[in-house]
Amino acid sequence: MSADIIPLHDRRSDPSLDPMLALTAQGMNAVNSVILGRMQSEIPLIPALAGHLISGGGKRLRPMLTLAGAELVGYQGSRHHKLAAAVEFIHTATLLHDDVVDGSEMRRGKAAANIIFGNPATVLVGDFLFSRSFELMTEDGSLKVLKILSGASAIIAEGEVDQLTAQRRIETSEQRYLGIIRAKTAALFAAAARIAAVVAECDEEKEQALDEYGRNLGVAFQLVDDAIDYDSDAAAMGKDRGDDFREGKMTLPVILAYARGSEEERAFWRDAIIGHRTSDADLDHACALIARHDALSDTRDRARHFAQRAVDALAIFPDGKARQAMVEAARFAVARGY
Amino acid sequence: MSADIIPLHDRRSDPSLDPMLALTAQGMNAVNSVILGRMQSEIPLIPALAGHLISGGGKRLRPMLTLAGAELVGYQGSRHHKLAAAVEFIHTATLLHDDVVDGSEMRRGKAAANIIFGNPATVLVGDFLFSRSFELMTEDGSLKVLKILSGASAIIAEGEVDQLTAQRRIETSEQRYLGIIRAKTAALFAAAARIAAVVAECDEEKEQALDEYGRNLGVAFQLVDDAIDYDSDAAAMGKDRGDDFREGKMTLPVILAYARGSEEERAFWRDAIIGHRTSDADLDHACALIARHDALSDTRDRARHFAQRAVDALAIFPDGKARQAMVEAARFAVARGY
Repeated sequence: MSADIIPLHDRRSDPSLDPMLALTAQGMNAVNSVILGRMQSEIPLIPALAGHLISGGGKRLRPMLTLAGAELVGYQGSRHHKLAAAVEFIHTATLLHDDVVDGSEMRRGKAAANIIFGNPATVLVGDFLFSRSFELMTEDGSLKVLKILSGASAIIAEGEVDQLTAQRRIETSEQRYLGIIRAKTAALFAAAARIAAVVAECDEEKEQALDEYGRNLGVAFQLVDDAIDYDSDAAAMGKDRGDDFREGKMTLPVILAYARGSEEERAFWRDAIIGHRTSDADLDHACALIARHDALSDTRDRARHFAQRAVDALAIFPDGKARQAMVEAARFAVARGY
Repeated sequence: MSADIIPLHDRRSDPSLDPMLALTAQGMNAVNSVILGRMQSEIPLIPALAGHLISGGGKRLRPMLTLAGAELVGYQGSRHHKLAAAVEFIHTATLLHDDVVDGSEMRRGKAAANIIFGNPATVLVGDFLFSRSFELMTEDGSLKVLKILSGASAIIAEGEVDQLTAQRRIETSEQRYLGIIRAKTAALFAAAARIAAVVAECDEEKEQALDEYGRNLGVAFQLVDDAIDYDSDAAAMGKDRGDDFREGKMTLPVILAYARGSEEERAFWRDAIIGHRTSDADLDHACALIARHDALSDTRDRARHFAQRAVDALAIFPDGKARQAMVEAARFAVARGY
């Protein structure tokens, strides 16, 4: 099979998620109906809390990857709808637990579930959705899919614990940071894309290619998320700018600015990351230091590198609507918030 | 197959878990080595936190049920070791999340994980163990076991949310309370016992019988746990007496004492359950009211009823060491803390 070279940069249009949305619109209706059906319970607090997050927007990018992957490999069945819902349930459970872990106040532009419903209910409804996701996979019956997604879940949890361990530790290296985001974010992107090849019974090469597309896209996505948290010009993300800063999270913009900083600047970062500088003026100063050392644009450059690798992984697939939408999604991932 | 009548009361000896421990000792070595091997991670905080709870004692009753069930049906293989470890991981994940939900200070006689490691790490390591349990099941490869245990996990989470909803609500009925403990405790006991019949490829009748044994034993076990929390004579449980009282949990001793109380007593309970009476003197008064209305001994009577049903479910199996140990375990469940 000949491999195309697909350019990430395309000056003809602004990057957009629209082709991906159009490609998966019909399938996403089916996925959404699984999601809504399976978040139900006789315990009213469960759909109330889960629905607060699930109906609160969110791009549902991960299930969309499963659907787009299925289009790409020409899958004709409907098994992927249930599995895409399982992927979104794992993601939702993770978000609910993250909000408890971080003490978040906002999520997707509204009050976070833990603020409205409290930490206890938020933890337990996360557990419920996580269990439901395994019920959905078990109903589908593919042990290969179960292996991929249970493995990804364990890796996500490890990545979250690793991030917690690195929190407020200024000495965190870029390599460690990349390891954390590969685990906490990219593993589920990879699994979401890969299972499309599994249900379509593709060969190992295609499975691997979809895995690489998802994994690299996930890293790019997280890098841009982390950049936006320090980008005063960025479009509203539905979370407060500076969350990572105030939580002492070591993300790439900080790692780069610290590495390139003067001794005085480094002293500021050390203070800030352990939580001694949390005012709006401190955040403005942090953003200024990050800008001075090109740490935001370099973070975006790194993201572009991973997005290009995601796109490269698609070269073995024939050109067409699905591949074009997935390339465009990678361009969009990098351009977000500009 | 003729069904025996097996008496729960046996005056020849004090009830003991020893026969169960002896029956499963060798198998539990294998289970423990799976548990220790699979709680490892490159992220050091994970084995540290998980090990704090896992090596901190605990009877490992649930995996023991899987092993005893396997003995009962004459299973000769070793698949049940991994699955029993998966059951214990689900239980451990639940305990970790419970401690966060309840703000527990003690667990198994030592400081709870959330006190030592904080809520964030405790939530995330629970997620990790939960994921690992599904990895273990997937490795085993039985979709039937996966269905049983993913279903049980969802029911446990529903039961926990239901309990949270009933907390500090004096009007909680005995029926609702029984529904809660069936879900949060008995579902995993039932699943743990049932999967022994699944790996041994028993017929549906035996599977169902083991399920009923586990389910009724689980209800009996939880009822006695709830009684012990108000029993000043009870042996130390490794948690503080009065935890349920201070957390405003509606358990059967309280439900019975409230139903049978005078108007003045009911006013006390209403105050106590919403959290306005939390002193040691209040707890002593609560215990006195419970004693006055025989609510502790009646709770234990209910437990005896469920333990007898557990034992009755074993009647279809041939008499022998395994059945005797399981009958004795049911007697022990009821007699604990006397």
